[in-house]
Amino acid sequence: MRILATNDDGIYAPGLEALVEALAPLGEVVVVAPNRERSATAHAITLHEPLRVEKVSRNGAFFGHAVSGTPVDCVKLAVVSLLEQRPDFIVSGINPGTNVGTNAIYSGTVSAALEGAMNGITSLAVSIDSVEEPDYSPAAAFTRRFIERLASGGLARATAFNVNLPDLPADRIKGVRFTHQGRLMFREEFHQRTDPQRRVYYWLGGELPVADDGADADSTAVLDGYIAVTPLHCDLTDYAALEQLKSWSLE
Amino acid sequence: MRILATNDDGIYAPGLEALVEALAPLGEVVVVAPNRERSATAHAITLHEPLRVEKVSRNGAFFGHAVSGTPVDCVKLAVVSLLEQRPDFIVSGINPGTNVGTNAIYSGTVSAALEGAMNGITSLAVSIDSVEEPDYSPAAAFTRRFIERLASGGLARATAFNVNLPDLPADRIKGVRFTHQGRLMFREEFHQRTDPQRRVYYWLGGELPVADDGADADSTAVLDGYIAVTPLHCDLTDYAALEQLKSWSLE
Repeated sequence: MRILATNDDGIYAPGLEALVEALAPLGEVVVVAPNRERSATAHAITLHEPLRVEKVSRNGAFFGHAVSGTPVDCVKLAVVSLLEQRPDFIVSGINPGTNVGTNAIYSGTVSAALEGAMNGITSLAVSIDSVEEPDYSPAAAFTRRFIERLASGGLARATAFNVNLPDLPADRIKGVRFTHQGRLMFREEFHQRTDPQRRVYYWLGGELPVADDGADADSTAVLDGYIAVTPLHCDLTDYAALEQLKSWSLE
Repeated sequence: MRILATNDDGIYAPGLEALVEALAPLGEVVVVAPNRERSATAHAITLHEPLRVEKVSRNGAFFGHAVSGTPVDCVKLAVVSLLEQRPDFIVSGINPGTNVGTNAIYSGTVSAALEGAMNGITSLAVSIDSVEEPDYSPAAAFTRRFIERLASGGLARATAFNVNLPDLPADRIKGVRFTHQGRLMFREEFHQRTDPQRRVYYWLGGELPVADDGADADSTAVLDGYIAVTPLHCDLTDYAALEQLKSWSLE
């Protein structure tokens, strides 16, 4: 089995190392990841400058390819150019901090998995509900089990799975829930400050409210102690709105 | 009526100027746009550095606020901080080059409108099927008519409308079609080259295939000479896949 691993925290992030270690027994794991932190880059790609690729070692051995672009750049470059064969799966993470609710749309971790599915490759984005550096082993072990399950017979179409885990030891995680993307959004504010040259600047801050997002939502499952698995695609069409529009005339 | 105008080509782009001129008779139009080209930034936001805002004049008069961030940053900063009152509508564009099919997910133009809808404000992304600088007036006039229609009674929920026009004079445009986001994707390749210092670099290239994307798709409507209006939301859940997953066990 061939697996491409990437993330949005950069190739040196501990979550990526934990992921690669856990997946190594499944086959060949190739790492193509950003050369620095690129979180909140969503589905951005690099068009107006070239990409550079450097080989990176870890503990004295070759670890992977560091790319001067976004997570989506990494997936494209790996699939279109760097890898000799198409990967069977793409895994993005492990991200400290959930990517649930509406906020998932900002996530580089999630976008890398979406880009994989857009290229016809079943992909996983894996995140843990923790701001501090969490214990990655329950998430890494689940990712391995999930890929084994998918390899033995997945869905008909290549799908992006957005996987979010509670920050709990494996024996306290209650199970798996298949969920939809909820509506949870950051409660945002801009801090307006003055720099040492007395010029004004703005800096985005905010917090993720703990709110009831409905029983079947990703955020609710994680809060309840379950692993949330949400299948995503890249069709943004609001079909309910489209149905209403059919009676409109704009001529 | 209060309208916020933004884009992903930067505050100096002619498409934005044409948009603002066309909408001015409707009420107060406030421009908050990136200070430089930021296309293909998708839903990226700036978290790790501050945003700067500069006032920009055009033809001797104040034109708008130039922000050192992405289109989504501009919408957030405008709505949360810069504007004294919430806008009634947000318009993003006018973009030279369509944002149709799967490719819409990379577009900063489209993401600005999605961000508007996420904040409960009905928003439009407007693009023209042209690579060269097109005649913006048919798109500008349609945008004005569409906003007047929405102001007289819109959909129940704030929606992001992805509007794509053929590059045709107004009297040759055949009408309006309400469409879904098609599956058209760039056919991509990376150009591998060597720089003057003999180091390898990669640069993303590609072309948009002219392919049949189905009768109700955005790209097909534009090819057929119609204005494509696609309602978008930010729920990426693949509900068909979710239904299949309900029979799975991952414990």
